[in-house]
Amino acid sequence: MGCVQSFRDLCDREKNTNVRISLPAVCFVWQIAMIILFGVFIRYNEESSPFWIEHRKANNISSDIENDFYFRYPSFQDVHVMIFVGFGFLMTFLKRYSFGGVGFNFLIAAFGLQWALLMQGWFHSLDYSDGKIKIGVENLINADFCVAGCLIAYGAVLGKVSPVQLMVLTLFGITLFAVEEYIILNLIHARDAGGSMVIHTFGGYYGLSISWMLYRPNLSQSNRLQGSVYHSDVFAMIGTLFLWMFWPSFNSAITDHGDGQHRAAINTYLALASTVLTTVAISSLFQKHGKLDMVHIQNSTLAGGVAVGTAAEFMLMPYGSLIVGFCCGIISTLGYIYITPFMEKHLKIQDTCGIHNLHAMPGVIGGVVGAITAAAASEAVYGHEGLINTFDFEDAFKNMTPTRQGGHQAAGLCVAICFGVGGGIIVGCILRLPIWGDPADDNCFDDEPYWEVRDKKKQKKQDSHYHGIHWNFT
Amino acid sequence: MGCVQSFRDLCDREKNTNVRISLPAVCFVWQIAMIILFGVFIRYNEESSPFWIEHRKANNISSDIENDFYFRYPSFQDVHVMIFVGFGFLMTFLKRYSFGGVGFNFLIAAFGLQWALLMQGWFHSLDYSDGKIKIGVENLINADFCVAGCLIAYGAVLGKVSPVQLMVLTLFGITLFAVEEYIILNLIHARDAGGSMVIHTFGGYYGLSISWMLYRPNLSQSNRLQGSVYHSDVFAMIGTLFLWMFWPSFNSAITDHGDGQHRAAINTYLALASTVLTTVAISSLFQKHGKLDMVHIQNSTLAGGVAVGTAAEFMLMPYGSLIVGFCCGIISTLGYIYITPFMEKHLKIQDTCGIHNLHAMPGVIGGVVGAITAAAASEAVYGHEGLINTFDFEDAFKNMTPTRQGGHQAAGLCVAICFGVGGGIIVGCILRLPIWGDPADDNCFDDEPYWEVRDKKKQKKQDSHYHGIHWNFT
Amino acid sequence: MGCVQSFRDLCDREKNTNVRISLPAVCFVWQIAMIILFGVFIRYNEESSPFWIEHRKANNISSDIENDFYFRYPSFQDVHVMIFVGFGFLMTFLKRYSFGGVGFNFLIAAFGLQWALLMQGWFHSLDYSDGKIKIGVENLINADFCVAGCLIAYGAVLGKVSPVQLMVLTLFGITLFAVEEYIILNLIHARDAGGSMVIHTFGGYYGLSISWMLYRPNLSQSNRLQGSVYHSDVFAMIGTLFLWMFWPSFNSAITDHGDGQHRAAINTYLALASTVLTTVAISSLFQKHGKLDMVHIQNSTLAGGVAVGTAAEFMLMPYGSLIVGFCCGIISTLGYIYITPFMEKHLKIQDTCGIHNLHAMPGVIGGVVGAITAAAASEAVYGHEGLINTFDFEDAFKNMTPTRQGGHQAAGLCVAICFGVGGGIIVGCILRLPIWGDPADDNCFDDEPYWEVRDKKKQKKQDSHYHGIHWNFT
Repeated sequence: MGCVQSFRDLCDREKNTNVRISLPAVCFVWQIAMIILFGVFIRYNEESSPFWIEHRKANNISSDIENDFYFRYPSFQDVHVMIFVGFGFLMTFLKRYSFGGVGFNFLIAAFGLQWALLMQGWFHSLDYSDGKIKIGVENLINADFCVAGCLIAYGAVLGKVSPVQLMVLTLFGITLFAVEEYIILNLIHARDAGGSMVIHTFGGYYGLSISWMLYRPNLSQSNRLQGSVYHSDVFAMIGTLFLWMFWPSFNSAITDHGDGQHRAAINTYLALASTVLTTVAISSLFQKHGKLDMVHIQNSTLAGGVAVGTAAEFMLMPYGSLIVGFCCGIISTLGYIYITPFMEKHLKIQDTCGIHNLHAMPGVIGGVVGAITAAAASEAVYGHEGLINTFDFEDAFKNMTPTRQGGHQAAGLCVAICFGVGGGIIVGCILRLPIWGDPADDNCFDDEPYWEVRDKKKQKKQDSHYHGIHWNFT
Repeated sequence: MGCVQSFRDLCDREKNTNVRISLPAVCFVWQIAMIILFGVFIRYNEESSPFWIEHRKANNISSDIENDFYFRYPSFQDVHVMIFVGFGFLMTFLKRYSFGGVGFNFLIAAFGLQWALLMQGWFHSLDYSDGKIKIGVENLINADFCVAGCLIAYGAVLGKVSPVQLMVLTLFGITLFAVEEYIILNLIHARDAGGSMVIHTFGGYYGLSISWMLYRPNLSQSNRLQGSVYHSDVFAMIGTLFLWMFWPSFNSAITDHGDGQHRAAINTYLALASTVLTTVAISSLFQKHGKLDMVHIQNSTLAGGVAVGTAAEFMLMPYGSLIVGFCCGIISTLGYIYITPFMEKHLKIQDTCGIHNLHAMPGVIGGVVGAITAAAASEAVYGHEGLINTFDFEDAFKNMTPTRQGGHQAAGLCVAICFGVGGGIIVGCILRLPIWGDPADDNCFDDEPYWEVRDKKKQKKQDSHYHGIHWNFT
Repeated sequence: MGCVQSFRDLCDREKNTNVRISLPAVCFVWQIAMIILFGVFIRYNEESSPFWIEHRKANNISSDIENDFYFRYPSFQDVHVMIFVGFGFLMTFLKRYSFGGVGFNFLIAAFGLQWALLMQGWFHSLDYSDGKIKIGVENLINADFCVAGCLIAYGAVLGKVSPVQLMVLTLFGITLFAVEEYIILNLIHARDAGGSMVIHTFGGYYGLSISWMLYRPNLSQSNRLQGSVYHSDVFAMIGTLFLWMFWPSFNSAITDHGDGQHRAAINTYLALASTVLTTVAISSLFQKHGKLDMVHIQNSTLAGGVAVGTAAEFMLMPYGSLIVGFCCGIISTLGYIYITPFMEKHLKIQDTCGIHNLHAMPGVIGGVVGAITAAAASEAVYGHEGLINTFDFEDAFKNMTPTRQGGHQAAGLCVAICFGVGGGIIVGCILRLPIWGDPADDNCFDDEPYWEVRDKKKQKKQDSHYHGIHWNFT
């Protein structure tokens, strides 16, 4: 730890939050790079190009409605809402960091999805005949998924980093994600429909490791801006509800056509319903007077959706989904009550949004549930063709058995954790360099350094006259 | 009334809002019960199980796209948004009860949908060959519908009950709903696509009866917390708009594939558009200086969607839809101006959200419109096959005529009212028992008793220094 | 200008904002007119009538899923959300005009869509065999599109007009729109999937011309209510994000089934992502200390969706979409920084929401991009059938060539500008008549004249005691 500490001291120089050169530079350079790379690599696939009509006839497809667009576009839009409104508004809960929560979320998601289309395209959609990536609606969904990993990581460092740092975090995060995803899904041949491992476990540990590297010892818990006010909690509920409602679409968006999407949606719907009740129960039980805490309602109610991600398309059974949700509501809420303060105090991990409780832990649970469910699969439950379809026991994996598949699932989970922790530490080191314009401790959780806040001057004048009510003007 | 009154006195003991034992207990016990019952009864149906591929081949279904999922999932998600964001945010309008509005809505919806899947499953989706309920996306929609009835009832008692009371209200509400729905749809063979009778009439009178039983004589209209502030009205508009926009999906979600869903969406779209104009007209006409009242805009604009529910899939014709919306906008707004104060003063019914104007009355109108439209149906308008399909004149009802169908519709409406009023009185009695942790009159419309409100202490300090501006801190 | 000025003086009499007679009268008369006209003209088309089943058999359509409803309904609902929540909440940014922003948006959209169904129906969906307009889901989408033009125009005059004026603006706006659309799409045979020309260019210049006619010389920029407060900016982000997320649905909603919808969605998705980065870059670069301005983030991030509208269904290519978005983010943000103040000062055009930067300019760019892309089309890129399908080179336009199509596109753009400017000047004249109840300069940007604002009295009392903090109570 000594070397880490001295590196920290080296980096902890005076803070200058002026990003007037660096932020535009990063945005322009990266966007121009995207245009060039898209020009070289990205084309429409046969379902989104005008040759679709000829493709349709050649493949004897009877109707335009069988274009993948109609199978996946409604789910895509739901996922899109989760990424931008769901994650964005979930992060508006701080009393004076709502612009940063929803605004930077917007920025890094918009950048991340372009880079994700390229990275994932190279691994999954490259047409070797002409060296081009052929994209369709499924690529858009996967790009949104990929971005989700980085937005989760943002949750851990919310209010403590500059937009330039976030762009760097996203660039590396997407890159790591695409590699990790390729290893887990293609090389290891694990299944992960809703991304419990690939998205949530990776994103969670990636963010936590970065937050550990960026530890601010003097950022007191009593920082006057850390916390919510009444209506910022209501704003955050917009995020919570859109995430909660559309999670069935998230977990079913890229599963198999037909029963795969159908079943994934049902399982997720049930797991989430169950989570709400146990979250409320634990939240009430562990507070004086049985009062509910908005932090738990906003976050832990979503844990069931995370934990059911991997197994959503499997025969988890309706009661199995309820059980998963039941456990996750309890664990996640207890996490907010006990683990988050523990991590801050003893592990030097400051986790603003509690992503450990909402994504990392439930993601690991989801991976384990997926492994168990896969290992328990049988032809009696799935049918002969159903088993092959659900687990993709085809081509190189023709001879796979469910038991071995369970092992592969577990291996996938380990890869996700390793990439998250390892990648996070490396990227965290990079982000400590004193060149990114991050805020001083006093400016954390404040929109002031990076946003024009119009009622600013009046607020100061106000403060000088009526001390003690500045919290009111948010 | 004497006996009712003495029962009331018996119940009106000192209030203790501590739900630290009762709320977790109810949540845990009921969620565990759900898991057990789901384990015993609930399975995937043939469209959501891996046997779909074999089912498809056996039934000569040409493509995965004909899985019911693709017909109904987009509508399901819209309905889901209405239940959680629509109803939830519509109830955030009170200045200091936004947490309770959106949070308890979330809790009881999440519990209610599980119980609804079971109750409705036993009546409608039981596979007698193995005694299991087989669920698919249509069951999820119906569960959401069933929950809507209870959320409507919540509107009447908003701010005056404890979460435990709401759980009880929901448990009985769902049960009554499922029985009532079975009687109306299956035994009486009434049609009710958008649930004007089954959902809105029942839910409305159920809530009003409960509110009558829970009458608080000293809850002055001038309660300092009853009413909205500027931005809580804007929050409520989120709820209004999502309900308004997605109502076409609500009314078309479970109608027949093809023209049925198509027509129901068009009719609802038109009825709602018409309602907005007459709501604005009446709101302006009946206020000094012609100013609009947000209460009307938030609520009465939705009445057209309720009233067109039953007849949405019939040949109501576009102008018919406009007429229904026209009338409902007028009636509902007048209801807010005249009937709600009258009910509070003379009938001892305190209706926080005005569900009588938004759901009960328009629901009854919808039932009547449905009966008339059904009775007027003819083969000339519907075509031979169209008439049979639209009204389901099949099997036991092969010899039904439109005129008789009209009578059955009217009978269905009566059943809905009876179940609503009767059920509400019984459940209201139960909820008066002094064991549920409901708030004292002074604590009504306040999040304080059931939620950790973070700016509380500061608020009190504030209050003591600057009397008269406490309303500002919401 | 002398004559315009004297007309202005004539009109600038004392203001009376009482709309208690005029607003209800307009609403009732117009709604009754709608009912009569719908009764005479509007019927269901073959896909939404009960004869669908016979139509299906006659046309050998294999499944109900091929009903146009299933191709377009998810996109329709997304567009619907954009119209009511997107535009509505985008206009809540003013500190004290949120009711008017979202409420009047609601009113005029609900009226406009009915009138649009009629106007567009006469031009596009008239069944000459019986003189009836036959409507289906595509008509609903087009009606929403048509309304969008008027809502854009509302943005220019936000806070400065009465609801009666808005109803007049909408009546004429829809009428002009339908004529202009018929000329552009049918007579000139330009293609305009996402309405860059038909909707945004027309709507933008229509609004700007009206705003020019309604110029208020004494409406100082320093008006105490012009501007946002912290949480009104967060409300506006709800509008921004729903517009941004669902824009792919907007541009693809009425394109060809299959690859047309698929490609339009992809192009729009990419253009919007690119716009976000350049908007952030320019916003940061042109402010002191590199701080971001919420006005830019709320508006300019959407410019890419506008500019890609016409060409969305063409083979713009993914990198082409990124380039369009790249340029529009820059131009639109610079517009907010330089052009809007310039227009106010020198051209006497007061553009509250900056629709010139968000709709008018990007719309023109979109028209130009569409013309170029169309002119550059070839069979090599589109395939033989693809070219015919995409550009509709059928019937009377069988011999059209891409180059000539490019010219027609440019002609369409000119028509849109002419209709916008010309129509706006005429309607602006009408709106200057001193009979519409518009607010005095002091009452601009204030909900007070047209809405019951509940915390009003308390606010006044407050103001008298604590001068200078009234801005806080919004």
